[in-house]
Amino acid sequence: MLTYDLEKRGKKPLYEYLYYCIREDILQGNLKAGEKLPSKREMAGGYGIALITVENAYAQLIIEGYVTAKEKRGYFVNRVALAETQTMPKNATPTTQKNTPENSSASGRQSATAAAASSGSQSVQEAQASPPAWIDLSSSNLRRDAFPFATWTRLMRRIMEDREEAFLRKPESTGVPELREAISEYLRKAKGLCVTPDRIVVGPGTEYLHHLILQLVGPGRIVAVEDPGYKKVGQIYEAHGLKCLHVPVDENGLIAERLVGSNAKLVHLSPSHHFPTGCVMPIGRRRSLLSWAQAEGAYLVEDDYDSEFRFDGRPVPTLASLNDEVVIYMNTFTKTLAPSIRIAFMVLPTPLLQRFQEKLFFYSGAVSSFEQYTLAAFLKDGYYERHVNRMRNYYRQQRTKILQALSLSPLSERVTLEEHGAGLHFIVKVRGIRDDEKWLDRLAREGIRLSPVSAYCYGGQEKYRHKFLIYYGDIDEESMKRAFEIMART
Amino acid sequence: MLTYDLEKRGKKPLYEYLYYCIREDILQGNLKAGEKLPSKREMAGGYGIALITVENAYAQLIIEGYVTAKEKRGYFVNRVALAETQTMPKNATPTTQKNTPENSSASGRQSATAAAASSGSQSVQEAQASPPAWIDLSSSNLRRDAFPFATWTRLMRRIMEDREEAFLRKPESTGVPELREAISEYLRKAKGLCVTPDRIVVGPGTEYLHHLILQLVGPGRIVAVEDPGYKKVGQIYEAHGLKCLHVPVDENGLIAERLVGSNAKLVHLSPSHHFPTGCVMPIGRRRSLLSWAQAEGAYLVEDDYDSEFRFDGRPVPTLASLNDEVVIYMNTFTKTLAPSIRIAFMVLPTPLLQRFQEKLFFYSGAVSSFEQYTLAAFLKDGYYERHVNRMRNYYRQQRTKILQALSLSPLSERVTLEEHGAGLHFIVKVRGIRDDEKWLDRLAREGIRLSPVSAYCYGGQEKYRHKFLIYYGDIDEESMKRAFEIMART
Repeated sequence: MLTYDLEKRGKKPLYEYLYYCIREDILQGNLKAGEKLPSKREMAGGYGIALITVENAYAQLIIEGYVTAKEKRGYFVNRVALAETQTMPKNATPTTQKNTPENSSASGRQSATAAAASSGSQSVQEAQASPPAWIDLSSSNLRRDAFPFATWTRLMRRIMEDREEAFLRKPESTGVPELREAISEYLRKAKGLCVTPDRIVVGPGTEYLHHLILQLVGPGRIVAVEDPGYKKVGQIYEAHGLKCLHVPVDENGLIAERLVGSNAKLVHLSPSHHFPTGCVMPIGRRRSLLSWAQAEGAYLVEDDYDSEFRFDGRPVPTLASLNDEVVIYMNTFTKTLAPSIRIAFMVLPTPLLQRFQEKLFFYSGAVSSFEQYTLAAFLKDGYYERHVNRMRNYYRQQRTKILQALSLSPLSERVTLEEHGAGLHFIVKVRGIRDDEKWLDRLAREGIRLSPVSAYCYGGQEKYRHKFLIYYGDIDEESMKRAFEIMART
Repeated sequence: MLTYDLEKRGKKPLYEYLYYCIREDILQGNLKAGEKLPSKREMAGGYGIALITVENAYAQLIIEGYVTAKEKRGYFVNRVALAETQTMPKNATPTTQKNTPENSSASGRQSATAAAASSGSQSVQEAQASPPAWIDLSSSNLRRDAFPFATWTRLMRRIMEDREEAFLRKPESTGVPELREAISEYLRKAKGLCVTPDRIVVGPGTEYLHHLILQLVGPGRIVAVEDPGYKKVGQIYEAHGLKCLHVPVDENGLIAERLVGSNAKLVHLSPSHHFPTGCVMPIGRRRSLLSWAQAEGAYLVEDDYDSEFRFDGRPVPTLASLNDEVVIYMNTFTKTLAPSIRIAFMVLPTPLLQRFQEKLFFYSGAVSSFEQYTLAAFLKDGYYERHVNRMRNYYRQQRTKILQALSLSPLSERVTLEEHGAGLHFIVKVRGIRDDEKWLDRLAREGIRLSPVSAYCYGGQEKYRHKFLIYYGDIDEESMKRAFEIMART
């Protein structure tokens, strides 16, 4: 029996503290790979705590890849790789296990995948032509009344009055200091990511930040992207003459061993919530990736695009918090606030920061100072955190409503639901379709727009046959019911 | 004697109509190269109009390179080249002269250069370290109280109230339609440039637009830039792995014949007001450049960065108005409004627009919708035009004050003034300096910051020895006097 002093948890919720203790034991090697954890009941009984507390702690360990649940057999510790060459992150000590790129995904992660696979909020198919749709499930639509308009405009007015002098200054090329400080503080509080403001670079959208990154990496290089994945990233690099390597994704995310010998200098990935399949990259694979990058002098771009909308458990810790020497952390406010606000940011590792200052110092800041100051105040005064919490609750309820509608609809007999623990879409596999494209065409003629997972694939579409994304953010229940009925008889 | 029916001028000012008539005769070949124009007095007497009217018309013809003034001899028609292969611009008919890249600059333009060479408003040396300066003449500082803050914030509030729904829409990749329409209208009225809104692409600064252009041109290409010139442009292209060809500039701007055989696919230039020397490219050289581009399938990027601030005569017509098939017209609101407002735009030729739609459709708009709508209203309601007029008057007065201060200062004995018909800086040549760098160092130690023209050179600095830029936009007269005194004894 594991013995932790639960009194020492301080202000942490009980389940979170329990999760930390077990994680630490796995990282320290006190809990060895393959070892069986106490059952949830044993654990709850032993400490005299609620079953739900243990369930939450285990769920988090499963999502993050420390533990695997095997049906009817129990919970088992995964192999957690750590490279010999890797600098030690503060919260980790090397285990004694050998490190090969694949030994982590060798342990089955079916149930973890089931708990974690889910959704996303990016759409590639903007150029797709189709008849006017009365319901669009193919791309992320924020809820109409979601944006805290009154607060935002109040802050804007305050900024206009207080910061007149800032209007006549060119914004710093990496963003105004106030905003970078506010982002640094937010990352610390919300993601447990500690970075100094000088490592933060603000830009008008993630696309712009990719422009900067590709200049740091240099022309002619190979960039690895996820397949399936967010195609826009590959398009940006290819439009600049870099070569894209499409690395397949399995239930643990990007298959790290495919990078060996690839000569890739940059890898773009969404480890906390893969787009579009929704899987979470387990700790073992994360470690393998980091070791590979460290050995190759490559950089990983961690696209944390909708990590704010994870509904179960705590947010998944960032790759950057494991090793900030090889990870470029990237996120945007466009997805959480409003599509018209073009502010994103990245956190550069020290060597790239230096290269930025040497090579790219000449760039002007590209985001209007005015909106930068407004966002800084919005973050600093706690409005952003409250907004994200409110939205998370809204989306959780919305998801429940929509899933309930699905389960009660005639479509439910033809559908397997892929999990939906996060993000603004989930994935359904629909049986009884002969040809996906023709089915989508028939739906389009009925005014229903839907994206297949295969639209995000570079190859291997076969694996994703009959799978579709359903964005539910701004869909009302009645329309959704009607769409499910039409889908059922199509 | 030329006979024009001045009654037909409609609403045009007399001098402008006279300028048009003579220009048309030159373009039609009715006035041949080398032909002498009537003297100003003859012309004024013949029509019974004021001498100043003729002077203004001739000055404009000289600035634009149609005519050369030869001291004590009179006004002579220049050779105006037009390529056989070139599509005909609406307002031009081919002359019978032969077309060689250099036959336009063969005709001397000393006096035209004297009338037109002047100033600019861009600084490259942002990364330069120097002790705190009490006077900074090295970069463009807009006048503190210049920005129409009250109007701008009032429009912003109106937009916030009226356009709430726009907040939740992603801005179009080329800019919101309202802004593109307003820009199209502005270009027509202010520059006589007729372009449909769909050819306009809005971005957060000219640097961003260059990012788009280089993707349209493709990697590995050769880009020609002016030497001396605005170095940032070359830096952007080089950071993306394109090769930069530095083309020398003479008193007529970029030397077109140097492009022959260069294989350049893109040429960046500032024909209406070369940065930093201030010269205006005459019509002959413009035609040569356009023919070359047309024959080579190359594009010319016309950077019209401070054409709003030309103090004498009408604005110089744009290159784009001569041939919109090979010219990308580019301008920014950052220089005229406020450095914190990051909105620039370009006008794409049809073939590039098509390539944009095929290759770069996936980009999101990178300028916040909110500021786009505000600027659209600012343009549409006429505030922008009024603001630019007000600023032009202010800068004209400011320039007169500063030049007067110079002429009365002890420095005047050591200084030759290079012309100052436009822009926010002028150039002085200072005698009695042995080593420019040491002189600048000594001034820096006295708290005076100044840029040498050679800072904008890639080679051939010798030609620009002892020449310095003086930005006067936000400098008060007393400080300027003090600075001139210190410079005089340094």
